[in-house]
Amino acid sequence: MDTLTVIKIGGNVIDDATALQRFLSAFASLAGPKILIHGGGKIATQVADKLGIQTTMVEGRRITDQPMLEVVTMVYGGLVNKQIVAKLQTLDINAIGLTGADASTVLAKRRPVKDIDYGMVGDIEEVDSGQIQFFLRQDLTPVFAPITYSTVGELLNTNADTMASAIAVDMVRHNQVTLVYCFEKKGVLKDPTDDNSVINELTPTLYADYKAVGAINKGMIPKLDNAFKALDKGVSKVIICHADEVAQAVTQGAGTTLKK
Amino acid sequence: MDTLTVIKIGGNVIDDATALQRFLSAFASLAGPKILIHGGGKIATQVADKLGIQTTMVEGRRITDQPMLEVVTMVYGGLVNKQIVAKLQTLDINAIGLTGADASTVLAKRRPVKDIDYGMVGDIEEVDSGQIQFFLRQDLTPVFAPITYSTVGELLNTNADTMASAIAVDMVRHNQVTLVYCFEKKGVLKDPTDDNSVINELTPTLYADYKAVGAINKGMIPKLDNAFKALDKGVSKVIICHADEVAQAVTQGAGTTLKK
Repeated sequence: MDTLTVIKIGGNVIDDATALQRFLSAFASLAGPKILIHGGGKIATQVADKLGIQTTMVEGRRITDQPMLEVVTMVYGGLVNKQIVAKLQTLDINAIGLTGADASTVLAKRRPVKDIDYGMVGDIEEVDSGQIQFFLRQDLTPVFAPITYSTVGELLNTNADTMASAIAVDMVRHNQVTLVYCFEKKGVLKDPTDDNSVINELTPTLYADYKAVGAINKGMIPKLDNAFKALDKGVSKVIICHADEVAQAVTQGAGTTLKK
Repeated sequence: MDTLTVIKIGGNVIDDATALQRFLSAFASLAGPKILIHGGGKIATQVADKLGIQTTMVEGRRITDQPMLEVVTMVYGGLVNKQIVAKLQTLDINAIGLTGADASTVLAKRRPVKDIDYGMVGDIEEVDSGQIQFFLRQDLTPVFAPITYSTVGELLNTNADTMASAIAVDMVRHNQVTLVYCFEKKGVLKDPTDDNSVINELTPTLYADYKAVGAINKGMIPKLDNAFKALDKGVSKVIICHADEVAQAVTQGAGTTLKK
């Protein structure tokens, strides 16, 4: 069984044309079937600003009213997604840009209002991994924008980290799966002030220890909780690494590898 | 062999939420495999205006500089395409939104500058009908935004009528094909001032006659020239009809049917 690599690339790389090109070349060089999930970056906020639509973030999450939903649909589902697809085509990767609505790949439900009304934000209900597998078998490389849909035809803004993890977990039915989160650091750091203090392997026990001493900081905790959950649900390996090191991380163990 | 229906829906319907919903319901009701190609409508111009990007049209064609290309990629490839896909999903049509870059379905070349520099506008070079057929065989319904790509990774703005005709012509390799242009009139009119003077059947000879007496006016001529070319290249039937009458046009002969 081929190992499938599911990679999430964050907004900071999307915002930097040179860094994005470097990342896409590395992504294209990876052997075997692969899936890319991209974030949105600051372009959505910039476009919203110019359109006179105010951006409100609560704990790093975008409040998505109807006008903001239209902005993220345009920017993530249109501009960013199609630019990535066209670039991958020149790198001989037959990419296909998708939102969750396309081919009903990722169904979600509008998040119920509790303390905060996030608006048109989706919590994932179901991934159609059979459909995704069918694209992979045809040598297509799915490139997902972080937009899903609901059974009543709403488009919903969805966290790209969560989308990557949900897709990776469901793809376990068909493949051995490696999930890779690319971001702006070389991995999970022992010392947040030292970029070279990368933890090579992280187990749940070690993770608890680092949290206890405060070495692993607040922003990393939801990402790592999510990543350990993916391992529990059958993903073989989770890697957290710098976007520039994605090829080395997958093949030679750069970055941080999470183990059960 | 199933008859494949390739339908182009224009911007005037895209701009009108109620008319779009009516059209999509009729589209969903059509039996057999089908493909939708949509135009962009005025939303691109409105978004461009708000972003401070000037719209220049020459003979009904949009001059597409780099900022305008980003707008049409956002609006056609993102907003309009994904809204249509999500709506079709609620109508039990497993739609998949595509630009020509996705799965390398429609390759184009940037139009050479002659009298007018149209900018980032694509002339279609090649349709991968095998890839499109593969989606259809999986009961997916392709929904194309009028954006193509070039071998150097440019996204290119492409006329939706031309894209519909190029796709229909190439799909002849796999299916018997009916090509339908939906617009705001009930068909090709004998008398442009009388909405009920629809010509039921139009042959090249009749077309020449109507042009000679000036009954068929300037705007229809490129559309009809294009349509007759599609017939010459193997498309079985071309229909020109009102968006509201697409189901009757395909099954009961409403609108204008072009014959060789």
